[in-house]
Amino acid sequence: MEALKERIRREGKNLGGGILKVDSFLNHQVDPALMLAAGGALAAHFGAMGINKVFTAEISGIAPALTTALALGVPVVYARKTRPITMPEQTYVASAPSHTKGVSVELMASPEFLGPGDEVLIIDDFLARGKTIDALVRLAHQASAEVRGIGVVIEKAFEGGREELAYLDVPIHSLAVITSMENGEIVFG
Amino acid sequence: MEALKERIRREGKNLGGGILKVDSFLNHQVDPALMLAAGGALAAHFGAMGINKVFTAEISGIAPALTTALALGVPVVYARKTRPITMPEQTYVASAPSHTKGVSVELMASPEFLGPGDEVLIIDDFLARGKTIDALVRLAHQASAEVRGIGVVIEKAFEGGREELAYLDVPIHSLAVITSMENGEIVFG
Repeated sequence: MEALKERIRREGKNLGGGILKVDSFLNHQVDPALMLAAGGALAAHFGAMGINKVFTAEISGIAPALTTALALGVPVVYARKTRPITMPEQTYVASAPSHTKGVSVELMASPEFLGPGDEVLIIDDFLARGKTIDALVRLAHQASAEVRGIGVVIEKAFEGGREELAYLDVPIHSLAVITSMENGEIVFG
Repeated sequence: MEALKERIRREGKNLGGGILKVDSFLNHQVDPALMLAAGGALAAHFGAMGINKVFTAEISGIAPALTTALALGVPVVYARKTRPITMPEQTYVASAPSHTKGVSVELMASPEFLGPGDEVLIIDDFLARGKTIDALVRLAHQASAEVRGIGVVIEKAFEGGREELAYLDVPIHSLAVITSMENGEIVFG
């Protein structure tokens, strides 16, 4: 997605250690028009696969997942990191270490909204080491839902997430693939 | 917004103690089409006020804020509850007690994306006691931004948030106003 790559080139900041700061349009400030285009592109890619639900993790996955779900005409479920009092005590739980937060987080999803018969498209802002997405996959599998595809806005290919998730044998699609962030550069694949 | 009220009537659960569970379309599972309509309605209400930025709090404010911002053609900033490593150390900080979480949370916003000259529309999923929105107002004021309006999806009028925020003298608009949740009922105003 050329508009996205252009935006990363213009506003993305390589903070070193593989950290890409895109807080101006994705992770703190969000550009809704760009998200709508990103969701449309992800929906177009996975549209023919019988998906009935988009599944993501709070927080930064919500915007692209919402626009993807909007384009597909299906609901989106976001896995929660803290349990609101509206959530039942019996939930699916999977833990994932977070690179950018420096801690391990638990993701929770309620059996009310994820279950057998669900054909799930997992959407997230980043595919880095694949840990968050793998936790979403485990939640979906706990719910006996099928994972039909994985779509992300930005893939940092040099962190190996795609290989980590290869065991799933489902299509993975990224709107921008970064192959290297060495020497302060941002190199696209 | 009649479609929203109808959805609350059909799927909302009164858990007692003023807690409204709308996890099937707003707080865990999200209905993107309903959010698009909600954002459109909020944007229509505040559209003529020169707003250049929508401001919300993670997590559940993101969906309606994104669709409102989309309709207004402006960016959305979501205040963060935990500091990602991409966020500068010097941020605006305001704390708010959370009714549904049972703890006090700190909201943070970066001076990179909120500052003098910004004409802000605050959007959130709920207006209850007004504590989260008041924290957002304080963040905006720390940034020397102007708050032009406050829009929410669901107002629990019996919790007094509107009165709490009256000192601001800005328009507050809610798409569904609940006046009572006594005796297991959900009564609209």
